[in-house]
Amino acid sequence: MKLYGYWRSGTSYRTRLGLALKGIEVEHIPVDLTTGAQKSPEYMADNPQGLVPTLVLDDGTAIAQSGAILEYLDEKFPARPLLPAGVKARAHVRQICQIVGCDIHPLNNLRILKHLKNEFDQPQSGVDDWAGRWIAEGFDAFEALLGADQGRGAFSFGGRPGMAECYLIPQIYSARRFNVDVARWPLILGVEEATLALPEVAAALPENQADAKPS
Amino acid sequence: MKLYGYWRSGTSYRTRLGLALKGIEVEHIPVDLTTGAQKSPEYMADNPQGLVPTLVLDDGTAIAQSGAILEYLDEKFPARPLLPAGVKARAHVRQICQIVGCDIHPLNNLRILKHLKNEFDQPQSGVDDWAGRWIAEGFDAFEALLGADQGRGAFSFGGRPGMAECYLIPQIYSARRFNVDVARWPLILGVEEATLALPEVAAALPENQADAKPS
Repeated sequence: MKLYGYWRSGTSYRTRLGLALKGIEVEHIPVDLTTGAQKSPEYMADNPQGLVPTLVLDDGTAIAQSGAILEYLDEKFPARPLLPAGVKARAHVRQICQIVGCDIHPLNNLRILKHLKNEFDQPQSGVDDWAGRWIAEGFDAFEALLGADQGRGAFSFGGRPGMAECYLIPQIYSARRFNVDVARWPLILGVEEATLALPEVAAALPENQADAKPS
Repeated sequence: MKLYGYWRSGTSYRTRLGLALKGIEVEHIPVDLTTGAQKSPEYMADNPQGLVPTLVLDDGTAIAQSGAILEYLDEKFPARPLLPAGVKARAHVRQICQIVGCDIHPLNNLRILKHLKNEFDQPQSGVDDWAGRWIAEGFDAFEALLGADQGRGAFSFGGRPGMAECYLIPQIYSARRFNVDVARWPLILGVEEATLALPEVAAALPENQADAKPS
């Protein structure tokens, strides 16, 4: 399988974490978002949104949208599951994933920030306030749900890393880039610390990708 | 089960469509977004994001995020499935759902539009341009994927209505509210026509909810 992505894209990072936690190796093909490579006709034939990531299966089938890719990987390769067993537990994990995947990340990606700057003439401070607001609203809810789950252990749910970490860890990375003071969410930071201590996640980190650039 | 929602909320409508297509009856409890009822301490105890919808199970378990609710309903009540069989088919349907669920709808909901007006001083035309842009980018991709699937029949996938319709139909309804000219997506409109012709969806329509107001 081939994963088309960009080193610093949150949804690419999210997908790489899922692969890493499941121990699945793929070929990584960089798509340079800074040059508009994601809008090339060749790439858009596989992903008509012109966004990353895209997973291309060995038979040529293209799957876009990181959430669909993670669910596919978990259904196709059941070992080391990203979702827990039990329908209520799965619903809970999907809910906390979607706090990030629907209500934080889509508001802060590159095409949105460009619109704020170019169409709404927002200075960087307006952009940071925007990004910081949605991160804070979402992380406040995520933190509350972590606090309400007494049995979760070191990770977001059920004592082991899974889909929730795939969503959460890249969003914390993104929050720091927007200069959000993440110290107000200690439970989230605890999950981050436990996840980043796992040796298998090193391969997923932005700075360890072939297309990474010095910051 | 109880579904807390708002008649005109796209994610509430999405969830009601899933219930209607599966033939599941629940108690509908209106949450009036125009009065801020979604931010009451009582409601936020079940949904710390203060957003709709929330499904409360008979044992009191609260599930928020419409995507998590739809997946829960499909796993808990397998009859009349919203997702097809087969991992690749499921990935495809989840992908097209997430075009709407991640890359259109979250950009256009009430809290976002208020930010554009109040913080960025955007006139209604700027708000309409914003909403219309993300709808168009997403619908262009959705339409392309419909066009590439020769075997789909009258609906988005596999000849029968399912999760894709739950996402798509409320988004078309929303697009019209933003004065988007939806005629440029004939395949999408064909899916809408086929879906709205199903007698079971009447119960899910915004105008048929107890809290609906005259437009």
